[in-house]
Amino acid sequence: MLGNLIGPEIRELIANRNFSAIRQLFEEMPAADVGEVITDLPEEDQAVVFRLLPQDQATEVLEYLGPEEQEHIIRNLGNEEAARILNDMYSDDRTAMLEELPAAVVTQLLTLLSPTEQQIARTLLGYPEGSVGRLMSTELLTVRPTWTIGQVLDHIRINGRDSETLNVIYVTDDGGRLLDDVYIREFLVRPLDTLVGEIHDNRFTALRATDSQEIALNLFKKYDRNTLPVVDSGDRLLGIVTVDDMLHVQEEVATEEIQKIGGMEALDTPYMQTPLLQMIRKRAVWLIVLFVGEMFTATAMGFFEHELEKAVVLSLFIPLIISSGGNSGSQASTLIIRALALGEITLRDWWKIMGKEIAAGFALGGILGAIGYTRIMVWSQFSPTYGPHYNLIALAVALAIVGVVLWGTLSGSMLPLILRRLGLDPATSSAPFVATLVDVTGLIIYFSTAVLVLRGTVM
Amino acid sequence: MLGNLIGPEIRELIANRNFSAIRQLFEEMPAADVGEVITDLPEEDQAVVFRLLPQDQATEVLEYLGPEEQEHIIRNLGNEEAARILNDMYSDDRTAMLEELPAAVVTQLLTLLSPTEQQIARTLLGYPEGSVGRLMSTELLTVRPTWTIGQVLDHIRINGRDSETLNVIYVTDDGGRLLDDVYIREFLVRPLDTLVGEIHDNRFTALRATDSQEIALNLFKKYDRNTLPVVDSGDRLLGIVTVDDMLHVQEEVATEEIQKIGGMEALDTPYMQTPLLQMIRKRAVWLIVLFVGEMFTATAMGFFEHELEKAVVLSLFIPLIISSGGNSGSQASTLIIRALALGEITLRDWWKIMGKEIAAGFALGGILGAIGYTRIMVWSQFSPTYGPHYNLIALAVALAIVGVVLWGTLSGSMLPLILRRLGLDPATSSAPFVATLVDVTGLIIYFSTAVLVLRGTVM
Repeated sequence: MLGNLIGPEIRELIANRNFSAIRQLFEEMPAADVGEVITDLPEEDQAVVFRLLPQDQATEVLEYLGPEEQEHIIRNLGNEEAARILNDMYSDDRTAMLEELPAAVVTQLLTLLSPTEQQIARTLLGYPEGSVGRLMSTELLTVRPTWTIGQVLDHIRINGRDSETLNVIYVTDDGGRLLDDVYIREFLVRPLDTLVGEIHDNRFTALRATDSQEIALNLFKKYDRNTLPVVDSGDRLLGIVTVDDMLHVQEEVATEEIQKIGGMEALDTPYMQTPLLQMIRKRAVWLIVLFVGEMFTATAMGFFEHELEKAVVLSLFIPLIISSGGNSGSQASTLIIRALALGEITLRDWWKIMGKEIAAGFALGGILGAIGYTRIMVWSQFSPTYGPHYNLIALAVALAIVGVVLWGTLSGSMLPLILRRLGLDPATSSAPFVATLVDVTGLIIYFSTAVLVLRGTVM
Repeated sequence: MLGNLIGPEIRELIANRNFSAIRQLFEEMPAADVGEVITDLPEEDQAVVFRLLPQDQATEVLEYLGPEEQEHIIRNLGNEEAARILNDMYSDDRTAMLEELPAAVVTQLLTLLSPTEQQIARTLLGYPEGSVGRLMSTELLTVRPTWTIGQVLDHIRINGRDSETLNVIYVTDDGGRLLDDVYIREFLVRPLDTLVGEIHDNRFTALRATDSQEIALNLFKKYDRNTLPVVDSGDRLLGIVTVDDMLHVQEEVATEEIQKIGGMEALDTPYMQTPLLQMIRKRAVWLIVLFVGEMFTATAMGFFEHELEKAVVLSLFIPLIISSGGNSGSQASTLIIRALALGEITLRDWWKIMGKEIAAGFALGGILGAIGYTRIMVWSQFSPTYGPHYNLIALAVALAIVGVVLWGTLSGSMLPLILRRLGLDPATSSAPFVATLVDVTGLIIYFSTAVLVLRGTVM
């Protein structure tokens, strides 16, 4: 958006080769904004403009670009320039960039790194996708319990420049085992001769590098921390993860959940970047499963074909009735899936949920049933569509609606719980999935009710 | 969960009046865990245990309790004790607690605050719900550009104890106007005689107290910051917002979006805490709208009643065909709603999306149509259900499926864009909403196709 506003201006400055004006313009902008401007430029200008940035800013801006822009720009930098920037990046931002680039490019870029940085990059990329290790930054400062605060501050003054955050300082023993994490505040508000050992309380929470990013997210949410340390199986400090990464993790988790609720496999990539064939595959799987499930509606109705022939009027209300069940089921399953994901409810609450949903189902079914009844009765005053026994038809439809809505609400709310109980993802009981289930059973409820009410008159 | 593990142990310690053991147990636990243990205790024990905590920990633990527990405990503290804790809480945590309590309790609690804190609490509660002001903490340190780093560190040592974060230090002029935010790192890695004015670059991003929390979330995501300053209309610094609050804001935003996609109004409160009547109301509104919309299916089918009477067999496939349209529409609308929310697509992309969805719709419709065709053809080898012209019926059904799926995909993807264009919330085009729309039009597509294919034979 920003890029669209000042893009033309930049393009003019490029055309006029007025590079000093561009550099000056960028100097006052946050890296994220510069990244946005560069993204919106035509490809051939992107590298030109990027090379105008001073190294510090260039390193920072690079992490705000998309994978395509990153690849294009890195390829257009000289090896020396690329090496400088890559060695200078924070290890977590570098991992995030490398994991999106084609393997051949990564192999080539890794050779540009210094031996130490290459070792770090390879280790981080070695952690499985979606693990805490992939988000980890190794730039951090550790201190010993025997140091004074004065020593700590001197240590920071000399070595702190490259540290990703100085908000938290880590206390380790001589073997590198994490003893505590201490907010910088604790050092800053105490006399300089205080010993680190006097401050720290051994009360800390740590992640494992192999933990999933969702575990990390839950710990960050629970403990309201800005930074969490990452340790190996021997409790040795490996790196840190910062909360700003968690916003992105949480966003991805929600996207996956939403796409599953929408009745498909999660896409993994943004809509526009997902290749057509891959998207069709991710959607087709569930559509086919639902379609095959829905075929049972034809089978179920086949059993009632004889009744249908005697009262074709019944078929007019099929979509209305089954969709009412589907809609109320979709509401219930969505509510329960989300409440489970947020930890608001647990499996132990199932009977409370069931009670609540039975009450809700009766109320909602009653409301819709009453509307349906009224609609048929009123319509029949003006039209003979529903025949002489329109009042019985209205009754059958109304009763069926109550039953189907109650059933939809009940199965929509219980299905996610059952899936969770079976160790499956509750979000799989998507709106379309519940709707399909309720369609088949809803038809049976409808025709059974109709047979009961209409036998001897319409049928 | 934790609470369930050590709950019984604590209950035994309470029964035995072994308070020192409880205090010791809690001493080594993070406040969030203590909060969890207390929440899981029976109500009559909660206040007893809470009063055992030293004041510092008590203040911290209180913010991790739910509104009910908070109210119960505060009521059970003496006024003096409650006053100490309330005055000691961070202003943002206090606002978060007060905004959930009944108005009468809040009025009473406010009188316990010191005049300064009362002023702060009233100001913060004065900002509209959902605004940045409600998340703001006023505990922060400001420095002047003319100070040296040595002066800054002295200032922190004397006044920093109550500051919510010392990760970022704010530079203001004499009138309290914000000049810059500077990471503490910048102070810690430079010689003590450096002037603040030499460090700061005037490059900062600030929020307004009246901005919505969603605006704040987007800025945090874009700029990867841990803390953002909040200013008034005169650019005077009012407070700060920290990123850990954004995890909760993002979670709420996703919950609202998910509930809307599920076809209801967003609940605002957790599932279990939402009163039954309120929940029924939030669900009934959309169910009624959808039901009334779905009534047009009966109308649409009324037009084809004559055809239906001649070929009752057609009615058997109604649920199968309209649900295929609903499912593919639900997939498409969910994808587009989420991509819009994430800013992955904009309205300008509509024709690219349309192209992609037409291709996907044809492919998906083709797959399902082929399955449907095969099913009817195979079934007819064993059963006379579909009559002598089963091959024509199979063709009519298959063609209708292609048309309905294509139409579902297309309307599901375009509807969110149209809603956004009209200034409405795209998430309103929920799965059930799209399904209803596609049901009505899908029936027309089905019967028109059937009439074209079957006229002269079955009809």
